[in-house]
Amino acid sequence: MSPSPKGSIRIPSETLNAFSKALFVAKGVSPEHAQTMANALTWADLRGVDTHGISRVPMYFRLLDSKEMNAAPNLHVIQETLALTVLEADRCAGPIAMQQASDIAMQKAKLTGIGLVMVRNTTHTASLGIYSEKVAKAGMACIALAASRPNMAYYGAKAAGVSTAPFSMAVPGPKGQAIILDMASGIVSLGKLAQLKAKNEELQTGWALDAQGQETIDPQKALTPLPLGGPKGSGLSLMFELMASLPVLNPLIGHFFSDKEDAQRHCQNAWIIAIDIAQVCSEASFQAEMDNTIKALKALPVDERVGTEILMPGERGYKERVSREKSGVPIPAKMQSTLHELALKYKVPSPF
Amino acid sequence: MSPSPKGSIRIPSETLNAFSKALFVAKGVSPEHAQTMANALTWADLRGVDTHGISRVPMYFRLLDSKEMNAAPNLHVIQETLALTVLEADRCAGPIAMQQASDIAMQKAKLTGIGLVMVRNTTHTASLGIYSEKVAKAGMACIALAASRPNMAYYGAKAAGVSTAPFSMAVPGPKGQAIILDMASGIVSLGKLAQLKAKNEELQTGWALDAQGQETIDPQKALTPLPLGGPKGSGLSLMFELMASLPVLNPLIGHFFSDKEDAQRHCQNAWIIAIDIAQVCSEASFQAEMDNTIKALKALPVDERVGTEILMPGERGYKERVSREKSGVPIPAKMQSTLHELALKYKVPSPF
Repeated sequence: MSPSPKGSIRIPSETLNAFSKALFVAKGVSPEHAQTMANALTWADLRGVDTHGISRVPMYFRLLDSKEMNAAPNLHVIQETLALTVLEADRCAGPIAMQQASDIAMQKAKLTGIGLVMVRNTTHTASLGIYSEKVAKAGMACIALAASRPNMAYYGAKAAGVSTAPFSMAVPGPKGQAIILDMASGIVSLGKLAQLKAKNEELQTGWALDAQGQETIDPQKALTPLPLGGPKGSGLSLMFELMASLPVLNPLIGHFFSDKEDAQRHCQNAWIIAIDIAQVCSEASFQAEMDNTIKALKALPVDERVGTEILMPGERGYKERVSREKSGVPIPAKMQSTLHELALKYKVPSPF
Repeated sequence: MSPSPKGSIRIPSETLNAFSKALFVAKGVSPEHAQTMANALTWADLRGVDTHGISRVPMYFRLLDSKEMNAAPNLHVIQETLALTVLEADRCAGPIAMQQASDIAMQKAKLTGIGLVMVRNTTHTASLGIYSEKVAKAGMACIALAASRPNMAYYGAKAAGVSTAPFSMAVPGPKGQAIILDMASGIVSLGKLAQLKAKNEELQTGWALDAQGQETIDPQKALTPLPLGGPKGSGLSLMFELMASLPVLNPLIGHFFSDKEDAQRHCQNAWIIAIDIAQVCSEASFQAEMDNTIKALKALPVDERVGTEILMPGERGYKERVSREKSGVPIPAKMQSTLHELALKYKVPSPF
């Protein structure tokens, strides 16, 4: 179990889930959509991805206030081929579009072997692992990616040009669990930079630029994260934009740097690809090879500078989930009062 | 134009192409397959990817000698659904399988919107950018990946567990050129480690482990490259194995660590996905958004520590190609004599 931050209390995930659902309903979201949004936050809270859990509620409220997020969206398919669907998300909360998209991608994959859903005009997709895990637990392989507005330096530039865009791959793993890679294209997340700033701890070299575009390790000056592996990370992020945003004619980089009034608006596009590997091999054969592979890797000599055991992608999050399902989700003192204030304002019973 | 290595001479790419084709034919490969193999090497030679150009001929000869590479392969489709094909490559030279796979993936995509070819049991795939560029130049988006036997540390382990597996994404770019990301999952390539060893130049910290699994910057001791961004790079590489090798029941990691006689054999598996974006938007609209995006990025303030201009993925290789098409491909002195000896042995006219 990860240590709890100072002043934090542990709350059962069910309580947090019901509380965030109630908040979204109070804000005008339908109960069904509010449940989907709450579930996405709870997924992250349980797995220890605290930056994508209930701590996001205030951001979602800001986006609903500014109408960048639509509380009553009209999701609809705008294009469809045998294996490909374009889903217009109508600025809905990301998890609503992504859950629907993953269902469609799997239906397509059942029919043709592989299905792609291009999600157009959504908002914060939350952790991509939510959806890639779901696809993998249904016995399929999944590739998911999202494009967002610039917040990360483009390789060779002294300013933000691309985003810390996420990428996820997942396959069915042992014991009904999925193997889930869920990574960003930045060398460090904005959340981590904010954390270091709050603690006034120095950054590692090569992590971020200041407002003038100079590399800095000063947590008070660090502004723009640098890409993972230079041209690799910014290249990945740019390719996600070129693939997810351009074909659906909803460009995020081009729009951000335009002189349009809403140039700074929050908006995302995403892809979910499902591959029905059951059409290629039996589940039992796949899992036998999976077991062999994991066994071989776990038998490698452990680098004690890193940890005490060798972990598969997503395994740390799974262990945390098991622990937090028993002991609750730690909520830091400051977040408790932020959420409590929201509860008072929207007349929702507060767990704090 | 990149500087030529000491003692190198520049040879027209057409000469190198004809020479390597003749060598492969002399080794028992059919003229058609030999041409495909030579073209793959020339693609890399022209783009400045010298580690994947004609310098690979000796390695291909070793693989043909050991029968790990099959000079007369019987490629055939072993499974097929509407949008997914499994191609048994019968240990052919990688480019033969990958070219065929990219054609099939595009045919599938024309039909259904997206096509996936799983290439089973191939050998060194060469630069994935060859195939992703081809798909992009045909107006489609492409995702390609390959799995290989362990040569890179798995995150948290003191020894090789995964490979420096490559990943490529490409889309149609301006003026008929493609935007091509072609990256490995290692923080440094084996080729770069060999280069530093030859020059006796120190590595950067965090690049490699020695034979004992300790991190080293000593070029004579560096053995195992470390993954790009720790768990991200080794996670990507492992996911490629789990997706490309397991469903086709040709595991590379599991086999490598088994007690089978051919555990160390060279073998690869790969995926090529083609997405027919013309079914989603017109080429003109896509390119208009592309132009806007590139223009915005190229207008960012340049980081003069990195270069004098901001480049798109694959642009450096394209510029090198333009230059080398005029001035030839630099071949270092040592490679000249290696290739000359092969020419003598196989009674093929030598350009050296």
